[in-house]
Amino acid sequence: MDKKEFIIRQLGRTKNKRYEAYVVTRIIHLLDDFSIKFITQQYISRPEGRALTDLFFPQLKMHVEVDEGQHLKIDNIDKDKIREADIVNATGHEILRIDVTKSFDDINSNINEVVEKIRTRRDRDTITPWDIDAEFNPQTYIDRGYIDILDDVAFKTIKDACNCFGHTYSGYQRAGASHPNPEIMLWFPKLFPNGLWDNQIYDDEETIIERNEDNEKAKTHIISHINNMEKHKHQRIVFAKVIGNLGDILYRFKGLYKLDLNESSESEGLVWKRTATRVKTYA
Amino acid sequence: MDKKEFIIRQLGRTKNKRYEAYVVTRIIHLLDDFSIKFITQQYISRPEGRALTDLFFPQLKMHVEVDEGQHLKIDNIDKDKIREADIVNATGHEILRIDVTKSFDDINSNINEVVEKIRTRRDRDTITPWDIDAEFNPQTYIDRGYIDILDDVAFKTIKDACNCFGHTYSGYQRAGASHPNPEIMLWFPKLFPNGLWDNQIYDDEETIIERNEDNEKAKTHIISHINNMEKHKHQRIVFAKVIGNLGDILYRFKGLYKLDLNESSESEGLVWKRTATRVKTYA
Repeated sequence: MDKKEFIIRQLGRTKNKRYEAYVVTRIIHLLDDFSIKFITQQYISRPEGRALTDLFFPQLKMHVEVDEGQHLKIDNIDKDKIREADIVNATGHEILRIDVTKSFDDINSNINEVVEKIRTRRDRDTITPWDIDAEFNPQTYIDRGYIDILDDVAFKTIKDACNCFGHTYSGYQRAGASHPNPEIMLWFPKLFPNGLWDNQIYDDEETIIERNEDNEKAKTHIISHINNMEKHKHQRIVFAKVIGNLGDILYRFKGLYKLDLNESSESEGLVWKRTATRVKTYA
Repeated sequence: MDKKEFIIRQLGRTKNKRYEAYVVTRIIHLLDDFSIKFITQQYISRPEGRALTDLFFPQLKMHVEVDEGQHLKIDNIDKDKIREADIVNATGHEILRIDVTKSFDDINSNINEVVEKIRTRRDRDTITPWDIDAEFNPQTYIDRGYIDILDDVAFKTIKDACNCFGHTYSGYQRAGASHPNPEIMLWFPKLFPNGLWDNQIYDDEETIIERNEDNEKAKTHIISHINNMEKHKHQRIVFAKVIGNLGDILYRFKGLYKLDLNESSESEGLVWKRTATRVKTYA
C-alpha cells in the first residue's frame, strides 16, 4: 500500500459520528502536510483504560477527538473488536477536542486552532518526515539502535520483527524466535482468546496472562515453564498480532516482559510483567 | 435544515467512487469559503443527455468531476433514480475534471488549480453570498422580479412556488394553481410514471409529455384540453416535483411551456413545448 492509497483509505473509512468526516477531512486538508502521518479511528491504551480516538498523529503523539456531547466514549466501544485491534500506547500523548455541538463558525475556529497546535508541535519537534516504506522496514530500527513503545512500532510480518534482532529471515511463521541474548525470546502472541490460547493483556499493558484453553495442556505448559528456565526463557520481547485499522495484520511492539514466578500458577496461567518499553536492536 | 447541517450532510454522503471523498472534501476545505454553495452528486441535464457530477457550485455554474478513467459515466447511472431526481439545467455550465489515476502530488496540484479557478470565477462574478434561507424564500424571487432556469430555483413546498405569483397561501396541496395572467396556469407535476400519470420530460427539458396511465381517462383528458381552451389553459409554468439529493422533496422550476396542438394526440398525450426559461414574479 503506497501513501496515496493509505491516505485515501484512512479518509474514506466508515464514520461512527455525524461530524467526524467533516472535522477529520478539514484538519487534514488545512494542515496540508503529508510529511505528517495520520491514522483515523485509533484505539489507544491509557492507564485508565482503552479508548478510540478519531484522528491520531503518531509522530506528534497528538490525538483529535470529535466531541458530540456523548459521555464515557469507552462504553460505546465494541469489546470484542478492541481485543483484536491495533492498540497504541498513549502514555504522554495529548488529546485535543473539537466540540461539534457549537455553531458552524465556532467549529471552524476550533479546527483552525487545532491545526495551528499541530503545526507548532511539528516545528518544535522537527519530526522525521512520514515515510510509509521506512516505518515497516527493520533496517530503520536497526539504524536507530532501538525500538521504543513511544514510537508505536508495528511490522507487517513476523520475519520483519525477527530481523531487527540479528536474524536474516526471508520467511518465518512461528510464534517464537531466538534473541542474541540467550535469556530472551521473541514472542508473537494473539492477546485475546483464539480457540487455542486464552491470552490477555491488561488495559495498562503492564501485564500479560498466558494460558492454554485446554486445562490439562495449560497445567503442563505452566509447570514446565516455571520449572525449566533453560528450555523456556523467562524474558520475552512481545510483538502482539493485531488487526490494523485498515484490516491488515500487524505485529505491534509491546515491550520486554518477564515471567512473574510469584503470580504465575496452574490456575492463573503464566503472568508476564513488563520490565522495559525500549529494547536494543541488532544488525 | 441550517447551513451547518446542510454542509455536513453534503460532505458525508455515500461515495460512488474511491477518490470522491478525498477530492470533494479537499476542494471544499481548501476553498474555505462557505459563502459559496455546493452540492455533491448533482444530476444535470444537457442537450446531449443527463449525467451526474461529483461537486456542483450553483452560483458559479461550475462542476467538478472526479475522473477515475471510466467511460461514458451516463451509462452507470441508475435510470430509475434519475427520473425522480433533482435535475439542474447545465446549459452554459463549466465542468472541471480531476484525474485521480495520476500520482498523489499531481492530484493535489490539480485540486489546487481547480480551487484557483473557482476563486477566480467567484471574484469575477461577484456572487450573492449563499443564504440557505433566502434561496427557498419566495420573497427573494419577488424582490428579484423573475425566476430564471439558470439560477436553478427550487422550493420546498407548492405554496412557496405559488406565492411568487401573487398568492399568499399558508398551505396548498393541489397540482395546479392560478396565475395573474388568466392564460397561464402553475403546474406541479411528477415528471415520471407514478401510477396515475405517465408524464415524461425530455433530456433537453424542452418537451414534456402528459398522459393519464388509464387509456380511457387519457383520451377524455386530452380531448378536453385540446378543445376547451377556456377551461384548460394552454400555457403552464412548470415546477417539477423531485427528490433533492439529501432525500428531501423539492419543486424545481423548469420554465414556461405551451401546449403543442399539432403534436398532441389521443395516442401521444398532451405535448408541452418550452417557450421561456425566465418568468416574471408578482408580489
